Amino acid sequence: MLLCDIGNSNANFLDDSKYFSLSIDEFVEYNNDEKVFYINVNDNMKSILREKENFINLEPYFRFDTIYCGLGVDRIAACYTIEDGVVVDAGSAITVDIVSNYMHLGGFILPGIVSYRDAYTKISSRLKCEFNTQISLDAFPQRTVDALSYGVFKSIYLLIKDAAYGKKLYFTGGDGQFLANFFDKAIYDKLLVFRGMKKIIEENSHLLFDKK
Amino acid sequence: MLLCDIGNSNANFLDDSKYFSLSIDEFVEYNNDEKVFYINVNDNMKSILREKENFINLEPYFRFDTIYCGLGVDRIAACYTIEDGVVVDAGSAITVDIVSNYMHLGGFILPGIVSYRDAYTKISSRLKCEFNTQISLDAFPQRTVDALSYGVFKSIYLLIKDAAYGKKLYFTGGDGQFLANFFDKAIYDKLLVFRGMKKIIEENSHLLFDKK
Repeated sequence: MLLCDIGNSNANFLDDSKYFSLSIDEFVEYNNDEKVFYINVNDNMKSILREKENFINLEPYFRFDTIYCGLGVDRIAACYTIEDGVVVDAGSAITVDIVSNYMHLGGFILPGIVSYRDAYTKISSRLKCEFNTQISLDAFPQRTVDALSYGVFKSIYLLIKDAAYGKKLYFTGGDGQFLANFFDKAIYDKLLVFRGMKKIIEENSHLLFDKK
Repeated sequence: MLLCDIGNSNANFLDDSKYFSLSIDEFVEYNNDEKVFYINVNDNMKSILREKENFINLEPYFRFDTIYCGLGVDRIAACYTIEDGVVVDAGSAITVDIVSNYMHLGGFILPGIVSYRDAYTKISSRLKCEFNTQISLDAFPQRTVDALSYGVFKSIYLLIKDAAYGKKLYFTGGDGQFLANFFDKAIYDKLLVFRGMKKIIEENSHLLFDKK
C-alpha cells in the first residue's frame, strides 16, 4: 500500500514500511500506476492531483471532533492517532494541537526552524547564522549566534511546555526529533501522520477497496 | 541638541524633545549642518556616516559592564539607563537584555512582529494574514489567524516573562507599547535609547563639547 502526505515543501511517501520524500518539484513530475492514498495541504497541488487518476484523497473520510475552522488534514491525521496528548509537527511550519479524550481542544502555529533562520537573515546581515543546536536554555546568551538560537529554541520550548501542561507530547516532522530532545518525556514518531492515514483506511476499507 | 539612532529599517531622531523618524533611504539623502550625536547598528550606513562631518559617533564613549560579544550599541544605550531590569526593544528584531546592578547578564533576540508575519506568508499562502492583536493568550485558538497570532505573541510573552523572573520590564521600539500591554507591570518608554545617549553625552560633555 502506497501512502502520500503532500505538504508545502515536500511530498512524503510510505511504501508499506519504506519511507521516501520528494521535493514538490519532483512530485509534480512523479508518475506511478499504483493506487496512492494521499492527503494534501498544498493548494498549488490540487489541480495536479485531479489529473492523477490513481491518487485517492483520504481527506473526506476523516471524522474528527473539532471546532477549529480550517484545520489542515495533516494535523487531523496526526491527532487522529492519539486519545490524549499534544501533537507537534515541526516542518516548514510548527503546528501544535491539543487532544483530550479524542477531542481537539485547539492548536497554534509557529514558523519552522528554517523559517526563523531566514527571517533573521532578512532583518540584518549581522543576524545571518546557523543556529547553535547545542545551546543551553538555562543560561543567558553571551554572543549573537547563541542569542538567536536561544530566542528561537526557548520560545518554542516554553510555548509547547505551556500547552502540554503535563500531557504526553508526540513529535513528528523534519525537526521533530531535535525539538523532542528538549523535553524529558516526549515521543518522536516520524510516521505519525501516516499512522493516522492507515487508521482511516482500515476504518473505511469497505469503501476504499473493491469487494472481491 | 540633535540625537540620531540608526537601525536596520529606520533612523530615529530626537531634536531636543521633538521625535521624528526617517526610512534608511530618506536618511541617506538627509542633510543638516547641525551637530548630530549618533549611534548606528546598520553596517551599510558606515561609509555614508564617515562622509557626514557633523555626525559624531557616541559608540566609543560607552563603558558598559558585559561579557556579551558584539552587543549592538543601541542595546547598550537602552541598558545604560537602568540599574536593574529587563530591556525589550521591539523593532525589526526583538532584543531582550537582562541588567542587574548595572551589569549586563546576557540577552537574546527574536524576530520582530512584522518579520514573523512575513515568515508565515513565505511558508504558505494559507498562512498569509494580519495578526489578531486582540487575541486572548488564555484559550487555545480555533482558527488559522488566531493560531498564528497566538504562536507569535504567546511565545514572545512567555520568553520575556521567563527572563524577567520578577524584574522590572522596560519596553521600547515600534512594537514596544503593544507588547508591554501583555504584562501587568511594564514600562513603555519610546525614548529609552535616546535617554542612554543623553546620559553618555552628559558624562562626557568635557570631551564632546568645545570648552569656552
